[in-house]
Amino acid sequence: MKDILSILDKAEELENNPKPCELENKILSTVFFEPSTRTKLSFISAMYRLGGKVIELDGGGNNSLKKGETISDTLTMMGLYTDIMAIRSPHEGTAKRASEILDIPVINAGDGANQHPTQTLLDLYTIQKEKGRLDNLEIAFVGDLKYGRTVHSLAKALDKFSGNKIYFIAPPEMQIPSYILDSLSLEYEVLEDYETVMKDMDILYMTRIQEERFDDAEDFKKCAGKYQIDKEILKISKPDLKILHPLPRVGEIHTNLDSTPNAVYFSQAKNGVFVRQAIMSLLMKDHTKPVYDGVDKRCKNPKCISQIEDLGGKWMDLKGKKVCFYCEK
Amino acid sequence: MKDILSILDKAEELENNPKPCELENKILSTVFFEPSTRTKLSFISAMYRLGGKVIELDGGGNNSLKKGETISDTLTMMGLYTDIMAIRSPHEGTAKRASEILDIPVINAGDGANQHPTQTLLDLYTIQKEKGRLDNLEIAFVGDLKYGRTVHSLAKALDKFSGNKIYFIAPPEMQIPSYILDSLSLEYEVLEDYETVMKDMDILYMTRIQEERFDDAEDFKKCAGKYQIDKEILKISKPDLKILHPLPRVGEIHTNLDSTPNAVYFSQAKNGVFVRQAIMSLLMKDHTKPVYDGVDKRCKNPKCISQIEDLGGKWMDLKGKKVCFYCEK
Amino acid sequence: MKDILSILDKAEELENNPKPCELENKILSTVFFEPSTRTKLSFISAMYRLGGKVIELDGGGNNSLKKGETISDTLTMMGLYTDIMAIRSPHEGTAKRASEILDIPVINAGDGANQHPTQTLLDLYTIQKEKGRLDNLEIAFVGDLKYGRTVHSLAKALDKFSGNKIYFIAPPEMQIPSYILDSLSLEYEVLEDYETVMKDMDILYMTRIQEERFDDAEDFKKCAGKYQIDKEILKISKPDLKILHPLPRVGEIHTNLDSTPNAVYFSQAKNGVFVRQAIMSLLMKDHTKPVYDGVDKRCKNPKCISQIEDLGGKWMDLKGKKVCFYCEK
Repeated sequence: MKDILSILDKAEELENNPKPCELENKILSTVFFEPSTRTKLSFISAMYRLGGKVIELDGGGNNSLKKGETISDTLTMMGLYTDIMAIRSPHEGTAKRASEILDIPVINAGDGANQHPTQTLLDLYTIQKEKGRLDNLEIAFVGDLKYGRTVHSLAKALDKFSGNKIYFIAPPEMQIPSYILDSLSLEYEVLEDYETVMKDMDILYMTRIQEERFDDAEDFKKCAGKYQIDKEILKISKPDLKILHPLPRVGEIHTNLDSTPNAVYFSQAKNGVFVRQAIMSLLMKDHTKPVYDGVDKRCKNPKCISQIEDLGGKWMDLKGKKVCFYCEK
Repeated sequence: MKDILSILDKAEELENNPKPCELENKILSTVFFEPSTRTKLSFISAMYRLGGKVIELDGGGNNSLKKGETISDTLTMMGLYTDIMAIRSPHEGTAKRASEILDIPVINAGDGANQHPTQTLLDLYTIQKEKGRLDNLEIAFVGDLKYGRTVHSLAKALDKFSGNKIYFIAPPEMQIPSYILDSLSLEYEVLEDYETVMKDMDILYMTRIQEERFDDAEDFKKCAGKYQIDKEILKISKPDLKILHPLPRVGEIHTNLDSTPNAVYFSQAKNGVFVRQAIMSLLMKDHTKPVYDGVDKRCKNPKCISQIEDLGGKWMDLKGKKVCFYCEK
Repeated sequence: MKDILSILDKAEELENNPKPCELENKILSTVFFEPSTRTKLSFISAMYRLGGKVIELDGGGNNSLKKGETISDTLTMMGLYTDIMAIRSPHEGTAKRASEILDIPVINAGDGANQHPTQTLLDLYTIQKEKGRLDNLEIAFVGDLKYGRTVHSLAKALDKFSGNKIYFIAPPEMQIPSYILDSLSLEYEVLEDYETVMKDMDILYMTRIQEERFDDAEDFKKCAGKYQIDKEILKISKPDLKILHPLPRVGEIHTNLDSTPNAVYFSQAKNGVFVRQAIMSLLMKDHTKPVYDGVDKRCKNPKCISQIEDLGGKWMDLKGKKVCFYCEK
C-alpha cells in the first residue's frame, strides 16, 4: 500500500510539474503479444512526456516467435535493445518471467485475465483526485462483474483502505465471483438494480457487457439495456457522484452525460498517462529483480507461462500462502 | 486566401531556416482510418523536423473501434494522449468533427473524396516556388479529372488568383465534372488531346488513371496509353514547363523525364514536408475551435460523418450558402 | 578490410562512450520489403542511441507499391523524407539501387539470400571482443551451412585475416556449397560430427536447421537432433570456447548454456546495436554514391533488382571480374 501511495503521489507531481527530460535518451519497449491499442498508446504517450523513446514489438509482427523462438528469448532480445519494458500477454505471469530474466525494469500491462495493475492504479488516482480520498467511500460497480478483471483488481485495492463499501450491481449471470467476495474484508452488497442505492454513491464504476459472452443476441440486448445510464441518473444520484469507466464504452453511458461534471471517464483515461509516467519514473530510479522462494511441483494453472515455457515449479510466499512465482496462483 | 499565403510563407521560411526545436516535447497523433502511407510518412517527417514526436493509430490496429467504440470516442482518446492530430478518414467531415470535440488542433489529411487540403497547399507551394507566382499561369490538368480530388481542389484554389487559365485534358469518360466547372470563375478549356496546347503551358499537372475505374482491361490500356508522357513532350512544350504529379505514378510519366529540370514531382513531394511543418507550426500557436451556426434537418450526404455517428443537423454559413457543418455540402 | 576495421573501432568507441546526441535531428528510414523484426528493431535502437528518429516503411503497409508504383519510386520518396536508410528486400541489389538514386546514405539490411553485411560485422565485432583478435582462430560452423547466408559471409570475412582455420560441420544435405569453398584461401575441413574437433575450437558458430528445408518431419528431427548442444559440450571443449548464434534459436542450443561465460549469443545480439550505430555514424560523415563502370548485357540473375525494375545491364569491376553493378553476380 505504501507503494501504491508513492506512485499516486508521483503521478500528481508529474501532472502538476511535467518533467519532459526525465527519461531523455531512454528507450521503452512495448511488447504486446495480444492487442490493446489504448493501453499501448497510453504508455507511449507517457514515455514521450518524459522525453524518452519507444520501440514497439507487436504479436502480429513478431516473426521470431513464428520461427519457433521461445517467449523468454524474445523478451531477452527486447531487453538488450531497450531500457524499460511494458509487456502485455495472454499468458499469466509473462511480466514476472520477463522481470526474472531481464536486467531492465518490467511493467505488467496486463496478463490474460490475471492482472492489469496500471489500470487499477489509474482508477485509484482518479478516485483520489476526484474525491480527495481513497477511504470511507460508497462505490457501485455496474455491468459485467464476472469477467471484468478491472473490477476484481480495483475491489481488492479499495479493500486496503478503511471504511469503503462496495455495491456489486449486475445481472445474476454476470455477478461478481464468490472467490473475489471471499477475499474481501470490507462491507459489500450484491444487487441486481442500481436505482435504489444511487442516492448514496460517491463513485459509479461502469463496465461494458460484451455481446460475445451471450449465446443469444436477444438475451444480450435485454441484459445490456438494463445497465445503460444517461443524464436521468443524475436526478436520483448524489450531486457530486463521479462516473468512471475503463473504456471503450459501447452504449452503457449515453453521450449526454459526457459534458456533465459527473463524467470523469475521459479524465480517467488521461490520468493513465500520468500514472504510467510515475511508474516508469520510479522504476528507472529503483528497480530490484524478483526472487523466488523455492522450487516444488509445477504450477497447475494451464494459462501460466511456466506451463508454456517449461520453467519448472518455482514458488514464492504471498501473505503466508505458497503460490506460483509466475502467476501467483 | 490570406491563410493560404501565410502557410506558404511559413513553409518557405522553414525550408530555408529549419527549426528543429520548434515543437520539442509536442506529440502529433496520426489517426488514419484508411491507409495513405505517403501522406502519413510526410506528416511524421514534418513533425520530426520540428523536434516533435508521433503516435500512430491505424485503422487496422484500432481494436477499440472493432469493440464497437464510436469514432468520436476514439478521437477523444487520441486527443488526450497528444498535442496535435492529423486525421484521414473515408467519412466526410471526420476532421471537422474531431476539431469540434477536441481541445487540440486537428489537421484534415484527407476525408473520403471530399477534401485533402494539405495536398492542395503543397501543390500551390510547388507552383509558387517553381514559377515565382500563383497568378497569370496556363495550367494543364491531364488524366483522371473525374475522380481526382486533387485536381478539383487545386483548380478551385487557382481560381482565387487572377489571370490563370486551366486546360482540362482527359478522355470523355474521365473528364472534369460540370459542377466543378460551374464553380469556377477563371477561364478554362475542356480538351481530349494535350499536344496542341502544350506550347503555351506553364504547368502540366499529370494524374494517374486507375485501372479499377474500368470494366474492361483493354479499354483501360487504350485510354491510359494516350495520356502517358515521356521526354518527347519537351520538344513541343515551353522550355520552362514544370511537370507536377501527386504520386504515386504507374506509367503516365516515363522515368526518362526524371532527371530533366522540368520534372518537379519529387521536389513537390518533398515540399509536402515543409508545408505540413508550416501548418503544424502555425496551428500550435493559434488554434480556434470551429463553431456551427445552427441546427436544422440532418445532412443528406450518405458519406457524411453526421450520418454515421448520429450527430444531428448542424449547419454553417459558407459564402452565403447554408451547408452541413461537417462535410460542408 | 580497412573499412571493416574502422567500423569495428567505431563500434567499440560507441560501446565505451555512448554519444546520445551524435545524430540528433536526423531521421533513419527502415524500408523492409520483407519482415525481419530483429534486424529492424536493432537498427531502431541504434538510431535512438545516437539521438536520432525513425520512420518505418514495411512491405505490408506499403500501399503505393500495391498501387503499382515501382520500388525505385518508393525508395526515392523515402529518401526525401529521411536522412539515412536501412533497406531489406527479397530482391538482390535493392540497396545498391537505392544508393544509386538517393542522395542519402543507404545501408543494406539484407537482400534475399545474397548479402547481410551488418550481420557479418556484428559477428566479427563479437569475435574480436571475445577473443581479442580476428586471426589465428579455429572456428567451427555447425548446422545449416547450405542456405545460411550468415555462414557464407562470415567465412569469407574471416578469410581476409591470416591464420584462421574453419571447420564446416553439417549433415551432408546441409553442407557448405563448393562454390563457397572454392572462393576461400584459408585452411578448412568439412565434417559431419563436431565432437572430435571441439577440443581445439576457439569459436563455435551454431545455426538453426529449418524444418521447412525437409520434406519429411522425421528426417528433420533426426538431422536437427544431432546438431543440438547443451552444457555437456563444455566437458569436451576448450575452457574459453565462445558460442555464437545469429538467433533466433529453436532448440539447437539448450538454455542450460545461457548462464555460462561461453555463451555469447545474447551479447552478440546486443553488439549488433553498437555495430549499426558505428555504420550510421560513419556514413553520415562520409558518404559517396556508387558508380557503375559500364553498360553491357542484362544481368541473368532472376532475383536481381535489375530484372524486376528494368534497369539495363550496368556492370562494375570487382577484383578484376565484370559483375552486375546491382547484385554483384
